[in-house]
Amino acid sequence: MKFESHTLLQPNHDLGTLTPITVAYGDGIGPEIMQATLRILQAAGARIAPETVDIGEKVYLGGNSAGIEDSAWESLRRTKVFLKAPITTPSGGGYKSLNVTVRKTMGLYANVRPCVSYSPYVQTLHPKMDLVIVRENEEDLYAGIEHRQTDEVFQCLKLITRPGCEKIVRYAFEYAKNNGRKKVTCMVKDNIMKMTDGLFYKVFEEIGAQYPSIERERYIIDIGAARLATRPELFDVIVTPNLYGDILSDIAAEMTGSVGLAGSANIGEHVAMFEAIHGSAPDIAGQDKANPSGLLLGAVMMLVHIGQHDVASKIHNAWLATLEAGITTADLQSAKTTASVGTQAFADAVIARLGQLPHSFKAVRYAAPGAAAAASQAEPTPALYTPAAPASKALVGVDLFLHARPEHADALAASLQTAAGEVLAVKLQMINNRGVKVWPQGFAETFCTDHWRCRFVASANMGVISQRDIVSLLSALTDAGLDVIKTENLCTFDGERGYALGQGQ
Amino acid sequence: MKFESHTLLQPNHDLGTLTPITVAYGDGIGPEIMQATLRILQAAGARIAPETVDIGEKVYLGGNSAGIEDSAWESLRRTKVFLKAPITTPSGGGYKSLNVTVRKTMGLYANVRPCVSYSPYVQTLHPKMDLVIVRENEEDLYAGIEHRQTDEVFQCLKLITRPGCEKIVRYAFEYAKNNGRKKVTCMVKDNIMKMTDGLFYKVFEEIGAQYPSIERERYIIDIGAARLATRPELFDVIVTPNLYGDILSDIAAEMTGSVGLAGSANIGEHVAMFEAIHGSAPDIAGQDKANPSGLLLGAVMMLVHIGQHDVASKIHNAWLATLEAGITTADLQSAKTTASVGTQAFADAVIARLGQLPHSFKAVRYAAPGAAAAASQAEPTPALYTPAAPASKALVGVDLFLHARPEHADALAASLQTAAGEVLAVKLQMINNRGVKVWPQGFAETFCTDHWRCRFVASANMGVISQRDIVSLLSALTDAGLDVIKTENLCTFDGERGYALGQGQ
Repeated sequence: MKFESHTLLQPNHDLGTLTPITVAYGDGIGPEIMQATLRILQAAGARIAPETVDIGEKVYLGGNSAGIEDSAWESLRRTKVFLKAPITTPSGGGYKSLNVTVRKTMGLYANVRPCVSYSPYVQTLHPKMDLVIVRENEEDLYAGIEHRQTDEVFQCLKLITRPGCEKIVRYAFEYAKNNGRKKVTCMVKDNIMKMTDGLFYKVFEEIGAQYPSIERERYIIDIGAARLATRPELFDVIVTPNLYGDILSDIAAEMTGSVGLAGSANIGEHVAMFEAIHGSAPDIAGQDKANPSGLLLGAVMMLVHIGQHDVASKIHNAWLATLEAGITTADLQSAKTTASVGTQAFADAVIARLGQLPHSFKAVRYAAPGAAAAASQAEPTPALYTPAAPASKALVGVDLFLHARPEHADALAASLQTAAGEVLAVKLQMINNRGVKVWPQGFAETFCTDHWRCRFVASANMGVISQRDIVSLLSALTDAGLDVIKTENLCTFDGERGYALGQGQ
Repeated sequence: MKFESHTLLQPNHDLGTLTPITVAYGDGIGPEIMQATLRILQAAGARIAPETVDIGEKVYLGGNSAGIEDSAWESLRRTKVFLKAPITTPSGGGYKSLNVTVRKTMGLYANVRPCVSYSPYVQTLHPKMDLVIVRENEEDLYAGIEHRQTDEVFQCLKLITRPGCEKIVRYAFEYAKNNGRKKVTCMVKDNIMKMTDGLFYKVFEEIGAQYPSIERERYIIDIGAARLATRPELFDVIVTPNLYGDILSDIAAEMTGSVGLAGSANIGEHVAMFEAIHGSAPDIAGQDKANPSGLLLGAVMMLVHIGQHDVASKIHNAWLATLEAGITTADLQSAKTTASVGTQAFADAVIARLGQLPHSFKAVRYAAPGAAAAASQAEPTPALYTPAAPASKALVGVDLFLHARPEHADALAASLQTAAGEVLAVKLQMINNRGVKVWPQGFAETFCTDHWRCRFVASANMGVISQRDIVSLLSALTDAGLDVIKTENLCTFDGERGYALGQGQ
């Protein structure tokens, strides 16, 4: 909880030694696709030392509601790298999502999802798609902070933080640099959410400016999503807050034509997790039918992450060459199929092509860190985020939210003014209902719920108030029988307004 | 602001008289496409009495920052129906969006967007698309309530209300019934936002059950959006909260291949507005080049809304027959084009086909209200929403949010416990940071911002506290120099928990 600078996670890049990784074989088709994947990694000369942990169904059914035991946490904390096959969460209540547990516990802030079309080997309406979605993974509306406020009104908090934005945006640009990507697109709704999404975009501009060789682009999320759904070939790397990223990454994955080929990474400051995006498919488990490609491409992301760019390129190209040869598992039959094979035979086909490049697909070439460092004159690893110096904060008012059913907003305003009369430091400035101004000078047509946002500001022009004034105000309103259900302080930070103006202000 | 039952907006359905409507010719291509549209309506025998108002560029530049004058408001309030051509908002700051102003002032709660493919006359990857998005238009994150909370953390409130949900869901099912639609799909993220999105889905189930002839379906928004982007033919009517609807309606409109053919409605309790979704295209204004189809289809929605189903069907079918004949304006050239015509000639071609049905497209048949009423044994117009009786509410705790930079969450907990020691009614239960539990028993890896949610609950097991206890607690923490920036009461409603549990609770 110290506020020193953090840097991007840097596992052991020493080429002479083996990098320990934690491996979970998972459930259903997990063991067979993991076996296939590790065989390919081994044959390609990956410099890794896997250690196996048990997670998933067996652990859940053994009475551990999270599906992961202390020994697995210990391994993860030590190796910092987790290659994970799909698991089965038993049906019935009480079992927590293992991915959510690992993400929350380990602070995995970035979800990385390459979405690539492989036409004509995989049927898709969008044959030229090759993009990566970098989704913020910890904040936004997903903090789970919800309150029922009144009889009629429910609330969820959307939280966007500066370090959260810095971490995800920094990761996106570093990812672009390390993966030969040319452009990063930011998608936000900052025309409406000027402060929260506005912060995300501001950080995008600040950090992006440090990567002059990478193009920056911005879309409002609605138009951006429409463009993604119709012309995905326009995009390269997309960085976006949690909710938008959730929606976009599902859209993009489905547009490629197969979710069976996609790998995914979840990146934290301490640990990174790599996996396929598909599930454990228990119906075909143990039959040597499953396609190991999603997990294999997850493992390729892992190799890039731990600095084994050479091995990652070799495997990725051999896999593309295999696809081009028309060799595929049963899930991807097409007119181009020359051989329909089982899981292990598919792995053998990839192994047989190690060292080959694809012909019709563009060959992959992950930049070796040495080369990249030389090209950029051995630039240091940038700070993941920079703790800001505390701003000079001034308390200038408070929004009080009331549960009430007045006959009219004017009557509520009068009650508030009477009740707050003795608190001389503040005055009532406006009342909103669902963001629409109802006092002073409301419109007759405005539909009002039982939830009123009442803004009190300093009586003195441009003045400040104290926390004590807010306590007095609350006390006075409570004495008057008014039901204050929520407060939000109004502050300035270094003289800049830290709250949105109400409609008509 | 009275809480009587409201009913669906019911303009004059009397067949013998003319229905007054307010018409704005707008800017750019507005006048010529409005002229074409009104000529078609007149030729088709629409029983309307248009009265013209001035809005838009001229009004903005005349010094009215909203672009709409009192005389226009007066007309709108009287006729309750607004057919609006696109307008131009002058460049430069200070001009407010006219659509936002009308929506907020008049409480237009439903945005209705039919998205239809017209393959092969309009090129699209999705030739079988024929769906309608009914988007909630007033609440969700769009209330514009944002606060900077600390040096690092910014917040936006997502508000979902029961009357808001009831109005939009009721509208969606009534729309389906009146437009011959068979299924309504609800898209929410209620696996994460169990209270807010959970309420929307609960209301969807409640109200949907009153329409047994219409199928109900639910998607989680991420998967639903992916399905929409890849298989739009699966959908009929989609009803969804504001933000999701914003994204989905842009995706669907762009997938049809042309945004130039789409009309849109904004429905309120007092007024309804109909328009094209495209803009005023000043570059081709006055050249008789513009396609009037978007505004015309908006006008068809208006005719259905005011009960002139017969005229709406006649115009819609004539327009489809014109499209099939290969007659089109310059924006839609294709291999099927037989005649490329101007705006007014296109209108003439539609007029010439009034009374014809399309051959390859399915003919439209809007149900006359008489027939629908007879079929349902003259059921009464349902209430738009039902004000709920106040629940029995009990205050059981409070979430206090602190701006702080402690060395460790344990230290913050100790400070809070010391400061709150004299407030015997409450005890500290947990501390979260961005929704992740940090006390008691936090994880070393959790990244902490300077924003702490501290939950106090009644000391007595299952006990209640008073608003006065919260005032005392705030007072004690203020005395101890702790910076409380926000509060959220924890209540039960009729014994049901009105707040989400924290992680690990």
